[in-house]
Amino acid sequence: MNEIEQVIQLLSRLPGLGPRSARRAALHMIQKREGLMRPLADALDRAVENIRICATCGNIDTHDPCSVCTDPKRDDTQICVVEQVGDLWALERTGAFRGRFHILGGVLSALDGIGPEDLNIESLLSRVGPDQPVKEVILATNLTVDGQTTAHYLTERLAASGVSVTRLAHGVPVGGELDYLDDGTLSAALKARHALES
Amino acid sequence: MNEIEQVIQLLSRLPGLGPRSARRAALHMIQKREGLMRPLADALDRAVENIRICATCGNIDTHDPCSVCTDPKRDDTQICVVEQVGDLWALERTGAFRGRFHILGGVLSALDGIGPEDLNIESLLSRVGPDQPVKEVILATNLTVDGQTTAHYLTERLAASGVSVTRLAHGVPVGGELDYLDDGTLSAALKARHALES
Ligand SMILES: [Zn+2]
Ligand SMILES: [Zn+2]
Repeated sequence: MNEIEQVIQLLSRLPGLGPRSARRAALHMIQKREGLMRPLADALDRAVENIRICATCGNIDTHDPCSVCTDPKRDDTQICVVEQVGDLWALERTGAFRGRFHILGGVLSALDGIGPEDLNIESLLSRVGPDQPVKEVILATNLTVDGQTTAHYLTERLAASGVSVTRLAHGVPVGGELDYLDDGTLSAALKARHALES
Repeated sequence: MNEIEQVIQLLSRLPGLGPRSARRAALHMIQKREGLMRPLADALDRAVENIRICATCGNIDTHDPCSVCTDPKRDDTQICVVEQVGDLWALERTGAFRGRFHILGGVLSALDGIGPEDLNIESLLSRVGPDQPVKEVILATNLTVDGQTTAHYLTERLAASGVSVTRLAHGVPVGGELDYLDDGTLSAALKARHALES
């Protein structure tokens, strides 16, 4: 397999690209070798070498702690808990949230055999102790069955800490995934968040 | 803009990928850093350095002359003329053609101001001289208006060479582009190709 075939084969493994679109993407890159293919190769090289997982929040960034955790202008009293980094990106695009984040790395799922020990839950609990500035934890897991289960589980685990635990408001369609929502709906859902009874 | 944002921005310039799918693709790669992101970065690096345009046929390959031009098992008496490298790839996938290729690099277009001097036509004519083994030139330009115009123009230019000039059979939908066709239709169209009167 030559380099071009390798590029096509690897591109076809990206979500949303099949063999045909991978071929078209490769051909497009080859035709824009200096303007697109080389910059992408260089950016990927640097990204592979420099990407770090933030030990505090689980975010993906080029330094650890990440730029969200180190930004002095963000509000230390709020942590927004999301399933995946893509959800953090979606909320960041709205500009509606200026607190900190915590990435679970998934949701509880009996079907997939994912329990609390498989998620970044202990690290979340360590961020909400009585000596910490956090006053509110916003549970922004998806409004799927597993996302709701996870939110209820976290509500119980967080109860002892005394922080107020909130959930994104309705506005997020039931069964909907954050990363697919438009920014306006996400902003509205964030603004209208409500307290959860555990 | 950090490395991750650069990767997303460059991916979003590929055909078929918008900002959202570029983000998902980047995130997918980051989560498969060693299995996908690093191999793709390496393959792109090697492709950028090693890609060559074949001086004989215009094909894109990692050496010049390309693997189609140098393959000793291919039939020297037939040249299949296509618009773009993607069309060559499409015909190669059918396995129905075992001759050589010639890539025009486009089609004649009054609208876009593309004349014969903008296409690889002189190099095609130089391949069909009386001292050459070529007996048949198959004009596999798309069945669009510009593709048909180009085929007729080439038929006239090739008349003096004495080679037989053929066209892909109907079977290719009118207005259809080769690269979007299924392999069976392409194979059938190739098999039922017919002579052109100039
Ligand atoms: Zn962080
Ligand atoms: Zn060649």
